[in-house]
This record gives sequence, C-alpha cells and structure tokens, in this order.
Amino acid sequence: MSGNTFGKLFQITTWGESHGKGVGVVVDGCPSGIEMNESIIQKMLDRRRPGSSVTSTSRKESDTAKIFSGVFENQTTGTPIMIMVKNRDAKSSAYKSISDIYRPGHGDLTYQAKYGIRDWRGGGRSSARETVGRVAAGAVANAVLKKENIEIFVHTTSLGSISSETFDRQAMSENMFLCADMTAAKLMEEEVAMVRLEGDSLGGVVEIIAKNVPPGLGEPVFDKLDADFAKALMSIGAVKGVEVGAGFRAASLRGSQNNDPIVPDGFLSNNAGGILAGISNGDEIVVRVAVKPIPSIHIEQKTVDTSNKATRISIKGRHDISAIPRINVVCEAMVSLVLVDHLMRQRAIK
Amino acid sequence: MSGNTFGKLFQITTWGESHGKGVGVVVDGCPSGIEMNESIIQKMLDRRRPGSSVTSTSRKESDTAKIFSGVFENQTTGTPIMIMVKNRDAKSSAYKSISDIYRPGHGDLTYQAKYGIRDWRGGGRSSARETVGRVAAGAVANAVLKKENIEIFVHTTSLGSISSETFDRQAMSENMFLCADMTAAKLMEEEVAMVRLEGDSLGGVVEIIAKNVPPGLGEPVFDKLDADFAKALMSIGAVKGVEVGAGFRAASLRGSQNNDPIVPDGFLSNNAGGILAGISNGDEIVVRVAVKPIPSIHIEQKTVDTSNKATRISIKGRHDISAIPRINVVCEAMVSLVLVDHLMRQRAIK
Amino acid sequence: MSGNTFGKLFQITTWGESHGKGVGVVVDGCPSGIEMNESIIQKMLDRRRPGSSVTSTSRKESDTAKIFSGVFENQTTGTPIMIMVKNRDAKSSAYKSISDIYRPGHGDLTYQAKYGIRDWRGGGRSSARETVGRVAAGAVANAVLKKENIEIFVHTTSLGSISSETFDRQAMSENMFLCADMTAAKLMEEEVAMVRLEGDSLGGVVEIIAKNVPPGLGEPVFDKLDADFAKALMSIGAVKGVEVGAGFRAASLRGSQNNDPIVPDGFLSNNAGGILAGISNGDEIVVRVAVKPIPSIHIEQKTVDTSNKATRISIKGRHDISAIPRINVVCEAMVSLVLVDHLMRQRAIK
Amino acid sequence: MSGNTFGKLFQITTWGESHGKGVGVVVDGCPSGIEMNESIIQKMLDRRRPGSSVTSTSRKESDTAKIFSGVFENQTTGTPIMIMVKNRDAKSSAYKSISDIYRPGHGDLTYQAKYGIRDWRGGGRSSARETVGRVAAGAVANAVLKKENIEIFVHTTSLGSISSETFDRQAMSENMFLCADMTAAKLMEEEVAMVRLEGDSLGGVVEIIAKNVPPGLGEPVFDKLDADFAKALMSIGAVKGVEVGAGFRAASLRGSQNNDPIVPDGFLSNNAGGILAGISNGDEIVVRVAVKPIPSIHIEQKTVDTSNKATRISIKGRHDISAIPRINVVCEAMVSLVLVDHLMRQRAIK
Repeated sequence: MSGNTFGKLFQITTWGESHGKGVGVVVDGCPSGIEMNESIIQKMLDRRRPGSSVTSTSRKESDTAKIFSGVFENQTTGTPIMIMVKNRDAKSSAYKSISDIYRPGHGDLTYQAKYGIRDWRGGGRSSARETVGRVAAGAVANAVLKKENIEIFVHTTSLGSISSETFDRQAMSENMFLCADMTAAKLMEEEVAMVRLEGDSLGGVVEIIAKNVPPGLGEPVFDKLDADFAKALMSIGAVKGVEVGAGFRAASLRGSQNNDPIVPDGFLSNNAGGILAGISNGDEIVVRVAVKPIPSIHIEQKTVDTSNKATRISIKGRHDISAIPRINVVCEAMVSLVLVDHLMRQRAIK
Repeated sequence: MSGNTFGKLFQITTWGESHGKGVGVVVDGCPSGIEMNESIIQKMLDRRRPGSSVTSTSRKESDTAKIFSGVFENQTTGTPIMIMVKNRDAKSSAYKSISDIYRPGHGDLTYQAKYGIRDWRGGGRSSARETVGRVAAGAVANAVLKKENIEIFVHTTSLGSISSETFDRQAMSENMFLCADMTAAKLMEEEVAMVRLEGDSLGGVVEIIAKNVPPGLGEPVFDKLDADFAKALMSIGAVKGVEVGAGFRAASLRGSQNNDPIVPDGFLSNNAGGILAGISNGDEIVVRVAVKPIPSIHIEQKTVDTSNKATRISIKGRHDISAIPRINVVCEAMVSLVLVDHLMRQRAIK
Repeated sequence: MSGNTFGKLFQITTWGESHGKGVGVVVDGCPSGIEMNESIIQKMLDRRRPGSSVTSTSRKESDTAKIFSGVFENQTTGTPIMIMVKNRDAKSSAYKSISDIYRPGHGDLTYQAKYGIRDWRGGGRSSARETVGRVAAGAVANAVLKKENIEIFVHTTSLGSISSETFDRQAMSENMFLCADMTAAKLMEEEVAMVRLEGDSLGGVVEIIAKNVPPGLGEPVFDKLDADFAKALMSIGAVKGVEVGAGFRAASLRGSQNNDPIVPDGFLSNNAGGILAGISNGDEIVVRVAVKPIPSIHIEQKTVDTSNKATRISIKGRHDISAIPRINVVCEAMVSLVLVDHLMRQRAIK
Repeated sequence: MSGNTFGKLFQITTWGESHGKGVGVVVDGCPSGIEMNESIIQKMLDRRRPGSSVTSTSRKESDTAKIFSGVFENQTTGTPIMIMVKNRDAKSSAYKSISDIYRPGHGDLTYQAKYGIRDWRGGGRSSARETVGRVAAGAVANAVLKKENIEIFVHTTSLGSISSETFDRQAMSENMFLCADMTAAKLMEEEVAMVRLEGDSLGGVVEIIAKNVPPGLGEPVFDKLDADFAKALMSIGAVKGVEVGAGFRAASLRGSQNNDPIVPDGFLSNNAGGILAGISNGDEIVVRVAVKPIPSIHIEQKTVDTSNKATRISIKGRHDISAIPRINVVCEAMVSLVLVDHLMRQRAIK
C-alpha cells in the first residue's frame, strides 16, 4: 500500500536505500520447481551495474546478489525469495554538503514534504539504486517466462538528438548504447562525449519488445496489459512517458490507417503493439518509454535550501551522463514482471 | 484481481456490458459526510453522453444515474455507494450480423482468446459504455477533492492533424471539442466533417491539468503519482500513450534544460509536470494522453471470422468519429480517482 | 480497503443498506463458461429468507435476485456479475423512534463513532440484510466448486442450551433448525417457544463441513486456509468464535492424542479439521462457529441516547429469536467463497 | 497474494526458512518519525527466543535483529524497514533422516502436495521460526501504538489440564508461563515436567487484551476488527480456534445476558470483547486463542513415507513441550499489527 510492492500474483517488494546497509527484494508467488541460483540473478544484475558503460558513474559496486530464502537445491520452493545486494562503495560524505539543499529534478523536496524527514545520503530511497531489487526480481520472472518460450529485449531508439534509423538486432549487442543501428550508436558516442565535457546530461527513448506472448493475457477494464505496462514503466524514476504500438503517432492517424487488418495468419501491421482492448493478441508486444536526462549535472542551477532560501548548486558527485543504457535492463525487468503476473492470472481463471 | 477494481483506499468497481441490463459502479471508501445526490452525478455523466457532440454516435441514452446505497439524507455515510445507469436504447440486432466476425482494432478477438466466450452485443464489456461507471465515481471523487480546493480540467490539444497553438481557458467551453484555441477548434470542425464523409475516424491528444494539488501526494517506488496516472489513463480503451510534464519531449532535452529551477516561490518551469520522484511538488499536475482513432469505420477492412476464414467488414452501426471529446471527462474522472486515493493514503500516514 | 470486498481472485464486493433501495453484490473473477442463471441464485437465497422459519422475523421479503451483468446466454463470461435484490417491505418508521438511541449489542454506537453519521433505518449497513449479497455470491462460488465435485453443508450443533448428540445427515433436512439430531431438534423447538414468550433470544453453534477438497489448497503463513475461514466466518455479524477441527478442545489434548496418525489410505482421525500448516490435507474440512444471541430483544435494557443520557429500551420491531438457522447458509457461502478463491490461487501457481 | 504479506496500510512481508540463511520481514507503510532502533526490536524478539523457558527447545539462537533499511538517525523514514535475523544454530542433519517421512500434525505432507517440493530442513517455511519476522514487525507496530497510548498484553489462561482461576496482572511476569494466577502456574510446572518425561506435549489457551483502543477502529462487513484478529491469530501455526469476548460461551447465553448494557460511563459488562458490529467500542479488546499441542513428540506415531508406505516415527530433535509461552508474544505482535493497520485506515477516512 505504501508503494513498495508490485504485482498481484507474482508479487515483489523492494527495500533499501542508496547508502544504507543494502538493497533487496522479496519475490512472493513464484511457482515452485523453477531452476534458480545466484548466478542467474547475477547475470541480469550485471547489466545494470555502474561503471560498465561510457554513460555511467564511476561508483564501483560489485553488486553481488545473495539469495536468502525460497530456493532449495537450486529450485524455487514456492516460498518467498529474498535477494539482497549489500552496499559497499557508498561515499555518504560526498552528500553531506548538500544535505540541506534541494537538488532540482530530484525528490529531495518532495520526500521532505511527504515524510518530514529524508535520508539525504545519495538520494536515499529515491535513488536509482532501488532498481537493483527490480532487476533481481526480473531475473526470476524471466526464468518463469522462458519456460513459456517468451522472450523480451530492449533497445535504445534515441539518445539526446540522435535516433536509430534502422533495426539490426545483432548491432544491439555490439555497442554500449544497446542501439540496433550502428551508425546511430557512433553518433551517440560523440554526443555523450560532448555533453560530458559540458557537465550536462542526456535523455532518450527505449523500446521494449516481447515475443511469443500468447493471446489472452491482460485483464479487461483497469488491469489492461498496457495499463500495467504503463504503470510498471512510469514507476521507473527517469521515465516521463510511455506508449504502446503506434503510441502518440496513433493520435494523428485515421482509423483506416491505425487499425491492424486481420488475416488468417495474424495481423498485417502492428499499430496496436500486440494489445487489443487491454489483452494480448498474439502479436509482438511493443512498448516505448521516454527517459528524461539525469538531473544531477555539473552545470550550476538555481535552487533553495531546506529553509527555503535561494541558493545555487553544482553537483560534483559521481553521476551518469544518461540513465540509458543502464535503465534498459530495468525496463526489461518491469515488462517481465507484468507478463509473469498476467500469465499467472490467466492460469487462475482456466 | 480481475481488473474491474481501481484504487486502494478510494476504491471503485465497475460492472456492466454495453447491451446488458445496465452499467454501474460501486464506490467503496468514500469518506462520510460528503454532500452527495443524483444530480451531482448526473451533471458529470451528461458530459460523456452520446448524442451531445458532432463527433459522437446518434445512440440516444438518457444515462440517468440512480444512487442505490451509501448516501443518507444527502450525505455519504462511509458505506459503499452503488450507482447504476440502466441501458435503454441498445440495438443488439445491429450487432447480430457481426457476431461471428472479429472487428479490427476491437477486443472481439482477444476476449474470445481469453474467455472462450464473449458477449458480442455492442462490444459487451469492452465497450466504452463501461466508462459510465468511471465517470459516476469520478463525480464522487471530485466532491471530495473540492473540499481540498483541488480543481481538474481537461482540454483537447490535437484532433487528427489539427493542434491547438494557444491556451485560452475560456475558449475551452465555447467549442464542442473542448479545445482551448478557437482557431484550431474551427479547423477541427472541418476535419471532422470531411472524415465523416469518408467513413473514417480520428484520434487526438488530450491534456489533463490539476491545480492546487498539495505537495506530498504519491507513494515512492511503484505507486508513484505519475505511475498511477499512467495506469489510470492507459486503462481507458482508446488511449495508446501517456506522458507527464515535458513527456516524450524530455527525451531530447539536456538536464540543464529539463530540470525545473527552484526559487523560494516555487519552480521557474514545469517540465516535471508537478511530480518529482513520483510525489507531487505543489506545482500544476500536467498529463497528456494519445487517443487512437475509433476503430469502427464504414470503410471496408480485411479481417477473419470466428473460424479464422478471411473476410471483409464495413461497420454500419452508430459510432463516434472520434473518442474526443467524450473521452475528456473520462480522463478527468481517472485523474480525480488517483488524486483522491493518494490524498487518503497521505492522510493515513500522518 | 473499506472492508466491503472479500477474496483475492474470486472477489466479491457487497453493497446496500437494510432500508435503502436494495442490496447486492459484484462478483469479480468468476471463470467464464460456468452455467449461471437467476434461479440458481434464487435457490440459495431462499434458504436465508426471513419468514421461512420458526426462529425468524415476520418481515416479508420475496428477495428476488436479478442478474445485471456478467452472464450471457446462461453462461458466465468472465466479466463482473452484478446481482441485486430490491428492498420492498422496509418499515423505516418502526425505527424512527429509536433513531437517537443506541441499541445494546448493535453497531449503532460504533458506526456513529466511526463515521459521525449513520443510517439508523433498520441498522443500515450493519444489518444482517447485507448477507444477501454474500449468499448470492456464494451461489456462484458453489457452481464453480460443483465442477470440482466439492460439496459443502452446514448443520446446527447447538441452540441455546440444547446440543446435538448424534449426526444423521438425513435428519438435517427434516427439521427447521438444520440439526442432524432429531431428538435435539425437538428440544430446540421447545426452547425457542419458551424464549419467544420471554421476549429474549438465543445463540448457538454451527458446523460447516466441506467434502472432496483436494490437498494443496491454502497459502502458507498469513493466508492459511484456516486463517481465511476464520476471517470469512468472523466477519458475519453474529459470530463470536471460530474453531477448526478439534478447535478449543485441542488446547487440553496431548500431542499424542491430537496428532492425526497417517496411514496409506489417509488419516485415522481428523483433529486437524482437514488442514495442516494452513493447507488442505485431503480430509474433510471441519469448521465451527459460535453464534451470539440476537441483540434485539423485547426485554427492557439499559442504554444511552445519542447525547449520552441514560435511558432504557425495549425493542418492539420484527426480529428473529436466533440467527440460527438463517445464518447457516451465510456460513456455507463464506466457506464456498474461501474455497473457490484458494482453488484459483492454486491453479495460478501450477 | 501467496500469503506471505499481512496488513493493508501497515503491511508486512515475512520471508525465510528454518534452516536457510536467515529469517526476516519487510515492514512497509510505517509512518515516518517513529523512534526506532535495533534494541527496540531485540527486546520484543527476546521474548520469543528458544531456550528461555521450561517448555522450550534447547536450540540456541541468539536471534540478533539487524535493521537494513527504513531507519535513519534512529527514526523511521516512511520507507520499507527490512529486519533480518540470521540463522546460526541450524542442525539440518538431524532432519535428514526424516526427509522422506511425513511427520503427523506437521505440514510436510501438505507442502509436498501443494508445491511438489519442500525444504525438509527443520520444517522449512512452515517452521515456527517464521514468526521471528512477525515479532520484529510487531515491535515496530507497538512503537506506533504507544504514541496513541494503546497497550497490549497477553496471558496464559490454560496449559494442558490446568486453567487460571484468578487474574493478577503482577503474577503474569513472575512465572515462566505468563499466567496471571500463581497457583495455576505452579500446577502448570508440574504438568510440564510430567509430560516431558512421557515424551509428549501440551496445548493451552492464551488471552490477548488491548487497552485504550479508541472507538471507531474496524471496517464494516468483511474487514471487521474481530474478523481481522481472527485471521491474524489463526494464521499462527499452532492456533486452532479464536474467540472474541464471551466467544463460544455466548452461544449458550440469552440475548438479555449477552448484551452489554450501556451507561453514560461506558458498558456494564464486556461480552462483546470491545467490538460491536466489527468496530471497536472503546472498551477493552479481549481475544482468546486455542493453541494445539506441539506435534513433534518422542512417542512413536503411525505415518507414511513420501512413497506412501506405512511406517512409524518418533521425533528425536530439540522441540518445545508447548508453544506456550513462546507463542504469547507472537499473538501480541499479530494483535498489534491489526490495530495499527486499522488505526491508519481510520485516519485515511477522516
């Protein structure tokens, strides 16, 4: 109820602050008999690790996942799976100097308004470090989806002013931006270098695709599959927009253009993004999110301190230039969690 | 769990099919002592009534709301409020001929895949008529918000190829599109007339604004205020995208452009759309949704029948040209429901 | 969240007050393809109808159930099933005289404390009339359970000072107390006659038995099958105690007496009441509830009025002598609802 | 949804197995600004520690609680509080020999039926060790209740064949059974000694009392305060019955005896146990639970192995003679959790 739990049947609860003892997740509702161990979790976690990409902070966290419960002899038992990653390289002192200043674009001011107290060390609970728990849970979700042959992948379709023009799935794994267009990826690299020099940051767009999703997933009315994707993805700190299939482009299409004609083999187009009336139609699921630029920048900004006096701030800590591509695996995790949940909901009514 | 319930503390459950005996809602969790009667509900319902706009169907429903419980001597009692609107002008026979054909862009195919049975009369549960319950509940939510001085309004920012260029709140109520730009509204009228002749349909974009929302609403992590807006709005049938504040535009901004500078009086810009780290910051809440064109069109389309044989369909029934502007009040209702829910959640932790 | 919803996968929301326009229920989550019609509902509702038993009020309600949604061509569609019973014979005037007095043993005082307002007509929402919705939903639940061959029945094991000594299932249907011991039933009749003359009322004990429940139902830890039965049954107004299997008697047994020995064919005893560690073990489910005497009595009682001045009250309206046997079908309904919910939860993890 | 979460606004999720790496809990929804530290948790945990009582196992667990998140500078921040106790003295080898035998009265058989796999080490998830998380969470709940002056205590009213006859609150803390009657306590000591020699075990009854609970807590209909107590307490492994106020005794009372007369100062009796129509009435809350005898006994019992072959078992491990008095603090924790949750629900609607 306080917003740290996601999912109904496959339910996760994340906990932990950026500079507390650790961050983690309890996965409740995972079916029993799924092969599971720490290296499966670790493999997915490594994809969001800082220090692994040109856009990311130099904070060094080994981010070693440890499973505390719910797994016995390498199999899930049906009981809650608690996974923890200890915090190690947390330099709280770097934040002490800004403990009484609200950073623009961050939750400092709103956490204070809500709770009357906040853990200012590294953003506390509002830090992107919270997503460690999401990704660890996503690895468990993926293991369940794999048994159904469902496959999810995420690629960067734009970073700053650069957009991908082509789609080459192979290319995705050959550049650090997870961009499926190598030419665009090279331009992205240049833009990142420039922005780093300027002490500024970049946003972008990420597309998530799920293949082999069976028709029939999603609950009508409020828990539509797309509604749950929207919530899942918008709940990621940096995300400011979510669209499905043709998305915002659909707003300017005619019905005759936007409708996907149906033929015995399937659909002739996929403006629906694989979802009709909130229920999967058997086509590819396609969802895109808008990622805002990282708010922590070296460039000086106007702000106020905790006593509402005007001041200026230039953020010196270790920060990413862009949430992309570290955010990509978080998006994948959230889509996986939604799909597993709806897969189980569908089983319940059969 | 089956997706017909929305909200956690202020919780609504809608029920009813397009051509069943009626449609309605149970509102559970409304605080006691709120002034309430049928005319308050009716006033808001009248704004979504078919037959009231140039873009809408000629189906004539008086849509008379009746309160069955939870109100005593014109006050809410704290117990569930059941509101029903009976269906009257339902011409099921018009649908009989297409009972064994899947309409492109509709949920016919996916409902069949999910349930193995579907009520084909007027789209059954997947009909936009379900939103009667949402709007009735929204009227109750609005009554609670009004006590907090929170005000919500919705305007059309684009319809088909026409976008509003200016914002004149007065204009909003002087054209049938709820567009805050009279010049754009006139062009929209022309486009609608043309599309009607062509037997086609139009999409558009709608913006919802909430004023006087106190800072501190929204739960961190998964139940962020924007995440709940995203789910609430994406759960409306025709919506294919949701964005907050700068939204998708934020993806191409630099951090120094996107961050809203803070001064003692508030913020110097509102790219955040009034939400930071998922919690309201005291500024105006700004959310936009992409509305797809109505899938029911006269133009002939390729499709299959229920035995998966190729066929063609031209939909002759009474249908809107665009979900806009009838959808606007539904968007308002959903935003109200999210705000009331988070208002109550915030009270709970104080 | 406001307590009018029960169940997680098979979820019901009841609404309505004793003297409002009607009482009803929304059943959400019922699997599709279940045979359903109004006479199935009616048959179960008739078992709780007032005026049908020697212990009951003379209030005459035909209690005619009407299905408003979720059923198409005599089958459930998977969408919400709204069932309503209109209130007809409501004599509110009889209550007017006590609108400013708190009746002992009733919720008058506590509703006022909670909400600052209450619908005093016939107890408003706290009236046993609310159980109409539960029983209607129970009829739907039973239809699902019947497909699994699960069978539930309820018998009265004591009324006032009389207890059944033998168990003859046939006898159950041959006396108005649903007592499985005809000798006891005759004594109950005498006790009821005497108590009626005295203007007093009676409590008793009811036992619910479920046969053919497969092993494996129930979730460990908090949502144990017995925990959910306890909540379901204690939520019935008149119930003050719930026990499973040996129940309170188990407290005075030794482990060697209380443990049910296991043999290849099953268990040699059933002190567990069919539940081990919160999960069904395949044996008969046995649950008992303590039903308090009806608080509305003709005998004069001390109380206070709404301004906390001492007064006396003698309740003249039409009231039952005992909640038994009308409560029996309500107990059955609640047990059915819990079983269906856990059946679906078990399907979800398979 | 898989039953490891309890509460709606003050929500806890426990995790961990008897012989896994540890056991713990995530407390979500605790208001901010509550004084909190590890010694507050530890003090309550010490009351359930094995090895502290004549009835308990010789397993030595220091049960040291560690707070991993949600507390900053000795105050709760409003974010999830993760508390863990590592398992140390876990002798799994003692269980290896019975890994393929179902222990009577335990969940071995039902876990296997439900999940097709079970962690047989020390009962795995079904072990009473799971209650460590409940008690740790209860300590947090108590800290919130203390600010409202609400006080809870638990005493043993019977153990085996011995019942307390008098109530002397002082006595409660002067004997190891938490019995408020010193004479009874001495007899309990003798019975325990005898039963230990026989290799058998004992059940009993425990009463929980909450003082200063304000009127108005509890939601009508399904989430009645007593219904939530019933679920909370029945969810404790050894509990087979729950009753409120007069409880099962109410079944044999007349209405004129059972109704609590109301006077301007309050109630003249408390058969209601402080709850009317599911809502607290301002009087003392009184709830009792029946605790079954510990199923692990030295006396040989009939059972089957995992291939359903008849066998016999005599359980040699370290086991308590009775769940009492270690269970008492677990009961207290559960009652605290229910009260905090309803306190917050009441705040939400004000």
